[in-house]
Amino acid sequence: MATAGKVIKCKAAVAWEPNKPLVMEEIEVAPPEANEVRIKIVATGICHTDLYHLYEGMDEGGFPAVLGHEGAGIIESVGPGVTEFQPGDKVIPLIIPQCRECRFCKNPNTNQCEKGWDGGDDVKVLADSRFTCKGKKVLQFMGTSTFSEYTVVNQMAVAKIDTAAPLDKVCLLGCGISTGYGAAVNTAKVDPGSTCAVFGLGAVGLAAVMGCKAAGAKRIIAVDINPEKAEKAKLFGATDFVNPKDHSKPISQVLSEMTDGGVDFSLECVGNVGVMRSALESCVRGWGVSVLVGWTDLYDVATRPLQLIAGRKWKGSLFGGFKSKDGVPQMVKGYLDKKVKVDEFITHNMTLDQVNDAIELMKQGKCIRSVLSVSPQ
Amino acid sequence: MATAGKVIKCKAAVAWEPNKPLVMEEIEVAPPEANEVRIKIVATGICHTDLYHLYEGMDEGGFPAVLGHEGAGIIESVGPGVTEFQPGDKVIPLIIPQCRECRFCKNPNTNQCEKGWDGGDDVKVLADSRFTCKGKKVLQFMGTSTFSEYTVVNQMAVAKIDTAAPLDKVCLLGCGISTGYGAAVNTAKVDPGSTCAVFGLGAVGLAAVMGCKAAGAKRIIAVDINPEKAEKAKLFGATDFVNPKDHSKPISQVLSEMTDGGVDFSLECVGNVGVMRSALESCVRGWGVSVLVGWTDLYDVATRPLQLIAGRKWKGSLFGGFKSKDGVPQMVKGYLDKKVKVDEFITHNMTLDQVNDAIELMKQGKCIRSVLSVSPQ
Repeated sequence: MATAGKVIKCKAAVAWEPNKPLVMEEIEVAPPEANEVRIKIVATGICHTDLYHLYEGMDEGGFPAVLGHEGAGIIESVGPGVTEFQPGDKVIPLIIPQCRECRFCKNPNTNQCEKGWDGGDDVKVLADSRFTCKGKKVLQFMGTSTFSEYTVVNQMAVAKIDTAAPLDKVCLLGCGISTGYGAAVNTAKVDPGSTCAVFGLGAVGLAAVMGCKAAGAKRIIAVDINPEKAEKAKLFGATDFVNPKDHSKPISQVLSEMTDGGVDFSLECVGNVGVMRSALESCVRGWGVSVLVGWTDLYDVATRPLQLIAGRKWKGSLFGGFKSKDGVPQMVKGYLDKKVKVDEFITHNMTLDQVNDAIELMKQGKCIRSVLSVSPQ
Repeated sequence: MATAGKVIKCKAAVAWEPNKPLVMEEIEVAPPEANEVRIKIVATGICHTDLYHLYEGMDEGGFPAVLGHEGAGIIESVGPGVTEFQPGDKVIPLIIPQCRECRFCKNPNTNQCEKGWDGGDDVKVLADSRFTCKGKKVLQFMGTSTFSEYTVVNQMAVAKIDTAAPLDKVCLLGCGISTGYGAAVNTAKVDPGSTCAVFGLGAVGLAAVMGCKAAGAKRIIAVDINPEKAEKAKLFGATDFVNPKDHSKPISQVLSEMTDGGVDFSLECVGNVGVMRSALESCVRGWGVSVLVGWTDLYDVATRPLQLIAGRKWKGSLFGGFKSKDGVPQMVKGYLDKKVKVDEFITHNMTLDQVNDAIELMKQGKCIRSVLSVSPQ
C-alpha cells in the first residue's frame, strides 16, 4: 500500500473544548505501532455518548479529542505482530476490547476485558492516540475515534466482519444497536413469555425492544415522553406504548397496575438516574430484573433498600454484555440473515462535514440514528 | 385439651409505645380461627428487627404490639380447617408464609409468598391479631409475636419440625441464622472457590459467614468495627477479619487491594445504607454480586451508575431466600445433623421477664443472641 508505514494526513472532526461545535481539521495519523491496525473509516453513527462527553462529562484533560465510536471501515495497514488482519479487511472498531487472555475474557459471565482503554471502574473515555493536529496531540475517544478518515486501534479492539456487510449500515452495530439488543438478550436474559418495559426509545432503547422480542417476550411496554416514538417502537416489537406525561401517578405505579404487580424485566436506555430508579421500581417483586443500559455517571442512582430486599435485582450492561470480538461479527451475521434490523434505525444520511448538524438533530431528539459517510469505500 | 376453644390468659411483653421498655402484662389470646393454630411459645430469640420496630421504624399505628419473631413452640390447639397440625406438634412460626398456591410460591426464584402479612412492597410488620390487653386490641408483629406465652398464627406461616429438636436452640432458625445462611447459599449463590466479604458480624452476619463456608468459598473476609468479633467470625469460617477503623482508606478500596480488584460476593448484614454501598463497591467488576441482608428502609441506598454498568449485581434477601415452610425444617435437620451451628450463636440464656435486659444487651452489642425461655416445655 502506498500509505503503509507513513503518516497519513486526513480530515477529522476535532473536539477542541467542551460544549463547543466540532471543527473539521486536517490531522496527522501516525502509522500503527506493534499490535495496532490503521483503519480507513467508511461510515460512522453518532451516539449519545459522544454528546455526553462533549456536553455533560466534560472530563478535565479530555480535550482536544476525536469523538465518534460507532464506525466501520477497512484495514489500511497493520503494525508489527498483527497476523489476524490484513489490508482490505472489513472491520468494526470496538469500544471494548477482547484480549482473550485476561481473567475477565476467560470468564463467561462478563465482557469487560481488563485490557480496555478504561482499565478499571473509573471508566476513562480517552486514551493515548496516533493523532496530532496543528502540532498538538489529539486524544482518542472510547478507543476508537471514528469521526476521522483514519484511526489507529489495537487489534484486540477490532472485529473482522463479513465481506458482504454494507459498512454504512453495520457501523451502527459498533455501539447502540448491539448495546440495547444485548442488554435484553445477554444481561437481562429476558425469558420467553415474559413482560418487559423499555425506558427511552432512542436507538439503544429500540434495539432493546428488538432484543426483548427476539428473546420471546410476550409483552413489551415501550416508555418515552415523546409520543412520536410510539409507532417506531411498535415496528421493533413493542406491544404497548406509555407516555409518563399522560399520567399523574408515578410511572412505576402505572406499569405495576398494567401488569399485575410489575414487569419481569426493565431496561433503562436513557442515562438518567431518576429513570433508572423508576425502571427498577417498575419491576415485580420476587424476581424482577432491572438493567442500567443508558450511560451516565454524574449523579448517584438510588432506591429504598426494601425494593431490593423484596427480591428485585439491579444490574448494568456495557456494550450489551457482548464479548466484543465474538459478538459484533455475530450481530453483523444476524443483520445479513435479516434477524437483526439495522436499516430501520437510520433516519438521516449525511457526511462527516455535517457532523455538527447531526449532533444538533440528536440533541433535539429529531433522529434515531444519523449515519455519516466518512471516506469513500 | 382443656384450653382448646377458650380464651387463654397468659403473660406477654407488650410494646405500648415506641422508644419505651416493654411491659410484662397479662393478655388474652383468643382461640384460633379458620386455618389458624395457637402455639405455646417455649423459647424466643431477640433480633435486631424487634429493636428496629421499637426504636427506628416506629410506624404510626404500630402500637401496642407484641414483638418477637424468632421463636419455637408447641401447637396448643388448631382452628377449623387445619389438618396439617395437631396439638403437641413442635413448630416454628414463620415470618414469611408459604401458601404453596400463589404465583410467588409457585416460582422457584422467590420465597416472597403473596399471602404474607405484608402483601406487597410496603412491608408492614404488623397485622391483625388474637391478642387483647386491658380491653385494647394488641397488634401482631411480623405475623408471629413470640414475646408471649401463646400466639395465634395462620397455618401457612408455621413449620412443623423434628420432634428431636431442642426448642431453646432451634428457635433461632426462625429468623437470624436462616436469614444470613440462606442469603449466602440461596440469594448470593456463593460459588465454590470464591472470595466473599461479610459486613457486620451479628447473628445474621456470622450465619452468612457460615453459609459462605458451607457453599465452599475459599476466602471469607469478615468486616466489623468491633474487633471483639474477629475470633467468633473465625469460629464460623472466616479466613480474614478487617476492621474499617484500622484503615484510612475506604473499606471498598481496602478489600479491593486485598483481593486483586474486589470480592466475588459481598453480604451486607448491618442494615445501614452506607455499609450497603461499601459492600457493593467492594465487589469485583464484571461479575461481583452484592446482597442486602440487613433490614432498613428509612433512607435511600445509592451508588454511582457505573458501579452497576461495570458488571456488579445488586440483590436483596428476605429470610435468606428460603421458602419458609420448606426451608426451616431443613435448617433444623442441618442442625441435628451437625451441619449448621446454632449453639455457638447463643451468648445469653434468660427468661421472658428479662426481655428489657436482653434488649439492652443487644443495643450495646454485648450479645450475639440471647434466648429467652417463655413457657415450660
